[in-house]
Amino acid sequence: MAALESFHIPELYTQLSDELQYKLDQKAKPIGSLGQMERIAKQIGLIQGTLTPALHKPVMLTVASDHDICDEGVSPCPIDITWQQCLNFLHGGGGIGLFAQEYGFDLYVVDAGVKYDFPEHPKLIDAKVRKGSRNFLHEPAMTREECETALANGRQIVTRFAKEGSNVVGFGEMGIGNTSPASALLAVLGNLSVIESVGSGSGLSPEGVINKTKVIQEAIRKHGISKDPIENLARYGGLEIATIAGGMLEAAARRMVVITDGFITTSALLAAHAINPRVVDYTFFSHQSQEQGHKNMVDFMGGEPILDLGFRLGEGTGAAVAYPIIKGSVALINKMTSFDEAAVFNTANEAIEK
Amino acid sequence: MAALESFHIPELYTQLSDELQYKLDQKAKPIGSLGQMERIAKQIGLIQGTLTPALHKPVMLTVASDHDICDEGVSPCPIDITWQQCLNFLHGGGGIGLFAQEYGFDLYVVDAGVKYDFPEHPKLIDAKVRKGSRNFLHEPAMTREECETALANGRQIVTRFAKEGSNVVGFGEMGIGNTSPASALLAVLGNLSVIESVGSGSGLSPEGVINKTKVIQEAIRKHGISKDPIENLARYGGLEIATIAGGMLEAAARRMVVITDGFITTSALLAAHAINPRVVDYTFFSHQSQEQGHKNMVDFMGGEPILDLGFRLGEGTGAAVAYPIIKGSVALINKMTSFDEAAVFNTANEAIEK
Repeated sequence: MAALESFHIPELYTQLSDELQYKLDQKAKPIGSLGQMERIAKQIGLIQGTLTPALHKPVMLTVASDHDICDEGVSPCPIDITWQQCLNFLHGGGGIGLFAQEYGFDLYVVDAGVKYDFPEHPKLIDAKVRKGSRNFLHEPAMTREECETALANGRQIVTRFAKEGSNVVGFGEMGIGNTSPASALLAVLGNLSVIESVGSGSGLSPEGVINKTKVIQEAIRKHGISKDPIENLARYGGLEIATIAGGMLEAAARRMVVITDGFITTSALLAAHAINPRVVDYTFFSHQSQEQGHKNMVDFMGGEPILDLGFRLGEGTGAAVAYPIIKGSVALINKMTSFDEAAVFNTANEAIEK
Repeated sequence: MAALESFHIPELYTQLSDELQYKLDQKAKPIGSLGQMERIAKQIGLIQGTLTPALHKPVMLTVASDHDICDEGVSPCPIDITWQQCLNFLHGGGGIGLFAQEYGFDLYVVDAGVKYDFPEHPKLIDAKVRKGSRNFLHEPAMTREECETALANGRQIVTRFAKEGSNVVGFGEMGIGNTSPASALLAVLGNLSVIESVGSGSGLSPEGVINKTKVIQEAIRKHGISKDPIENLARYGGLEIATIAGGMLEAAARRMVVITDGFITTSALLAAHAINPRVVDYTFFSHQSQEQGHKNMVDFMGGEPILDLGFRLGEGTGAAVAYPIIKGSVALINKMTSFDEAAVFNTANEAIEK
């Protein structure tokens, strides 16, 4: 069994906080006038322990799995969409296939539990634990061992990219039915009612939402809430969610910049946060999803979404679209001229002329 | 006198609305799940009259002027910052010098009324009407002729870039004291009280804000509100604001994509909107500024800001940072695979297999 102590994450380099703030405040602009981009720049400085942070080889891991909870009618979509979209992404299609290219990510599709035998592909990572997370209305979504294997797979994949020189990792997902485990995790880990945690996913009818709510309520009644975060993840999560959670924990352990996407990847962060809350210090919340419940998730962890574009797609699309802002924030702290360099009077009316 | 009829702007190609929507709805994703990016893609299709829109040679015009209203103590900053920052921008410095490079704009600084004799520079456009907008507490900020010259200058500059192949123009500004004319225009054109229109600009104290409010209230009491929009712009605007307004009207007339920035450029849009409201159909509101009053301005014109990053800098920084989202929206409508191309089941459960 994976001991929780093995999920160690270092503290941020908080000793640099004042120096980073001073550097930002010397830029030729009113103090704080670039708002969230200054906050992002500072956080990356604290993550990397430097006044001159840098982003290398951004990688997007879109992790996929199927879910037997679909047998309960929780999604309007046929489960074949999961494997079809994975192939589509690998050929540059779908939302993330396009946006990864557009915003400069190296995209990998990770098969954590898709009900399909994929042909080999250089951008497909085989991390299949089994075909489909189990129907959590009847039994835990994963056995303890399956859940730990998925966590370990996520850690191993991120380790590979860290060794190849990446220090930024975005997470996306694909899995028909996966808003159900995400909602269950939010209710269980975020201490919310199931009604506050459930939404319409990719287009469920109002009646469908009622059914989905009942299924999740019944499941939680049956399996209960554990004090062990890995146990809760095993009962209510999904194979892609556990794989992503493991990847996020490893990325934080390695002081990488983590970018979360929408409702599903944020539920993985919530599961990771239950294992070690420090993971959030290394994470940027790319956007506020339209899926009801996502705001509760973000608020629970004290996140500040960068974008609010009304997305409800997942796949990593929000993480990709937010990246130019993260990149620009790093450019800001490194390259923007200071009052001194620019020979501009500062607002305190002290002329600095060369 | 410039007849208002001369500010003709064509209607959007609304006859393409259904076809654009159909094209977006065929993409391999739940309908509407890329939210605002779908709306942006559609609007650019309506602007350009095509199902395959394209963005060419984005240019950023950062228009600068000084303001004699500073004699009334409305800004904590020395006016020399205006010319110093213009030089800074020309050398890649300041916020917009950096972000124009980072986000792919060709940056030009336009001198509409700076109190400084600039040396020649290939990226500096001389459109100086006079040194400084007049103190509008005592007299109109511009004579009618000065205002019309500034409007015409803006039109001429945009015409030049349109002829060079640009079809996207972002607007920024630099001008110590220019939140005062912007607030006055908001009060006069947006039918708001001065209190609702005034903010702390680049860092005015609460006492300073009270003084600024009184100065603007007194000016409006003195000069009144005209039924002629150019007259109101002349009374309360500024040389950079009038130049930008002219540029926006010309860009819309030429079916270019207009990107507005923060409080000042949006006040120029408000002035342009008073001349011909159709200008807004061609404009993207890049971000929600932190400057109080900006939200009222945006709401008055029915805008939907793309970003909300807590910026209050101006210069064109918000317009630049929003550009990757606009560019990605165009990629979405052109390049994202459809259900048909991807051979993915659509959500209505109709298998489309090749």
